[in-house]
Amino acid sequence: MTSKFMKRKMNTTQKALALHKKLHGKIEVCGKTRIDTPQDLSLVYTPGVGAVSLAIAKRPALADTMTWRRNAVAVVSDGSAVLGLGNIGPLAALPVMEGKCAIFKRFAGIDAVPIVLATQDTDEIVHTVHALESSFGAIQLEDISSPRCFEIEDRLSKSMKIPIMHDDQHGTAIVTLAGILNAMVSTGRTVPKKVRIIINGAGAAGIAIAKLLRVAGFMDIISCDRRGAIWAGRPDLVDVKAELAAYTNQYHVKGDLADVLCGADIFIGVSAAGTLTSKMVRKMRTDSIIFAMANPVPEILPDIAYAAGAAVVATGRSDFPNQINNALVYPGLFRGMLDKRVCKVTNVIKLRAAKALASFVKHPTPERIIPSIFDRGLHKAMARSIQK
Amino acid sequence: MTSKFMKRKMNTTQKALALHKKLHGKIEVCGKTRIDTPQDLSLVYTPGVGAVSLAIAKRPALADTMTWRRNAVAVVSDGSAVLGLGNIGPLAALPVMEGKCAIFKRFAGIDAVPIVLATQDTDEIVHTVHALESSFGAIQLEDISSPRCFEIEDRLSKSMKIPIMHDDQHGTAIVTLAGILNAMVSTGRTVPKKVRIIINGAGAAGIAIAKLLRVAGFMDIISCDRRGAIWAGRPDLVDVKAELAAYTNQYHVKGDLADVLCGADIFIGVSAAGTLTSKMVRKMRTDSIIFAMANPVPEILPDIAYAAGAAVVATGRSDFPNQINNALVYPGLFRGMLDKRVCKVTNVIKLRAAKALASFVKHPTPERIIPSIFDRGLHKAMARSIQK
Repeated sequence: MTSKFMKRKMNTTQKALALHKKLHGKIEVCGKTRIDTPQDLSLVYTPGVGAVSLAIAKRPALADTMTWRRNAVAVVSDGSAVLGLGNIGPLAALPVMEGKCAIFKRFAGIDAVPIVLATQDTDEIVHTVHALESSFGAIQLEDISSPRCFEIEDRLSKSMKIPIMHDDQHGTAIVTLAGILNAMVSTGRTVPKKVRIIINGAGAAGIAIAKLLRVAGFMDIISCDRRGAIWAGRPDLVDVKAELAAYTNQYHVKGDLADVLCGADIFIGVSAAGTLTSKMVRKMRTDSIIFAMANPVPEILPDIAYAAGAAVVATGRSDFPNQINNALVYPGLFRGMLDKRVCKVTNVIKLRAAKALASFVKHPTPERIIPSIFDRGLHKAMARSIQK
Repeated sequence: MTSKFMKRKMNTTQKALALHKKLHGKIEVCGKTRIDTPQDLSLVYTPGVGAVSLAIAKRPALADTMTWRRNAVAVVSDGSAVLGLGNIGPLAALPVMEGKCAIFKRFAGIDAVPIVLATQDTDEIVHTVHALESSFGAIQLEDISSPRCFEIEDRLSKSMKIPIMHDDQHGTAIVTLAGILNAMVSTGRTVPKKVRIIINGAGAAGIAIAKLLRVAGFMDIISCDRRGAIWAGRPDLVDVKAELAAYTNQYHVKGDLADVLCGADIFIGVSAAGTLTSKMVRKMRTDSIIFAMANPVPEILPDIAYAAGAAVVATGRSDFPNQINNALVYPGLFRGMLDKRVCKVTNVIKLRAAKALASFVKHPTPERIIPSIFDRGLHKAMARSIQK
């Protein structure tokens, strides 16, 4: 199976490179009206456009109907934490952001623009994104490394009047929560506070997942980083991890990942390829739930996890079943936020989105805990779940 | 004639408002490839896109073929000097920028994105635009008020490795020079240094026009502002006007616009509606050339100027003949700069572009000194004129 997996990967890699070479970019800007005559030109541009500008100057709300702003989202990255590839810089991040923009349009009709920033300085990023507020109806932050991502999102959420969301945190947390809810149903687990969840990885995604699981009523969560379990008082913790320790691991469990996994119900990996072994899975509870979401290669391959006793396996990949993919969330979530004129991404919005995503699967089974991005009506249902 | 003009204006205004209300934005972002299957998704997004990002991280030049950057232009404004409407702010500037983006696509296949900035602070604008360098292949600055526009363009030109051009300056200067060259041919004038040119308006456009006319060999230029002729030593001059005085008005001519127009060959207006009267035109040389480019209402209406003896009248409007419109220049100019990988907009580039535009009209007449934006092959010819 592993060699088959490698072969498929090679195939995808070659095809992706060839497609990108052919396309010269996955998105384009298109005009929505013909410009074939001087008359056309006088309406879309000067002199006609002057009246439109004056109207908006008098009543700024008219920009919602007379420009693209209310439907436009900036997908912003500094290239400091791209997929699982690390700090490869803004230029190398651009194909990922373009991909997100193509998905925004395909699934939610949103006009998204990739903005990769030629700076990784927190202050400069905050000022730059802030200056984009007049141009876009919402901001999606993407692939910005931890812990800078927390400060950047926090400062911008406070100063901007449009919704801003770091997708690696909240998109991942929402889709993970939705998947966990259905994985529990499909394995006969019913009470969130009775399951033990181990989260491997305490970067942007890992921390946001822990936070949202707590909001959703999960009480027994242990987060791990490369040094093992995170517990309040562990002497090497940076600020964000110390904060995380305050609402997880209530029994101060210590030890490495293999230690804390003994008897756990759920493994959530937002770490790196191969960090979960079949030996570790065997030590978990019967019918364990494995979310191996490292990109592009998961913490454990599904067939290996199943062989070691897992009941449900999910990954971040589109070429395995149960894809825990942020793209299930953000098109509909942003569609809803733009349509309902939401100003801020709250916990209530995140919870509602996760529940809408989970309940879209009528009868969850171990092979289908999460919808497919191609399911009819999914993104509209996600959008409908959003309330101001 | 004037009431007919007003009626036509009303008509255009109503139609433009209705069109903008209907469209909800004149541009959209479109995907260039189908996303209909998990396989499609695995190529445009994760996991396939990871290989593309890694390839660009290793060889940044691959971003030119594998992303849209080489074909993407940001149209940036702070809304401080929009058309002739003044400082109406970024939101009200957005329809104008969208119009330019629609034109970029329609005439040169360029993917242009309107970026209106929620700041009018020079430093903040410079830092923000600088941070966009990884996202775009070129920057067009637009509708930024004088004198800030000079400092902003100057600082960015020095610090950025992609071409950056303030269109109100150089686009206007290039199309004006092209029009003047053909207007001279059509009125039997042959020697640039023998004609006297009066430029009314010493903002961004007026200053750039004076500069480029000098580069093109015109020696007898007098610039005017609201206080009349600008001459070296006039005590109230701000820096940029003092600089302008150093290479114009060599005979230190003083007086108001009406005074200096006596005996002049050419009037170039980049000022305000109605500043040129038929009385003033009558005092100019026989077969005078009038470029009344104030937007949306010109300094003088063509029929009035002709009645007062003008041989050639040009305006900025699409609903009169001889439209001196930046849109004749920027699509092809940016196409050429992107294709030839130009890093900086030099005087040589501007001169070549002006000459390419002028020579596109094979036999200039007073009614046709400048091509139409719809002329087949125009924008390709402009692009071909660009050399690194």
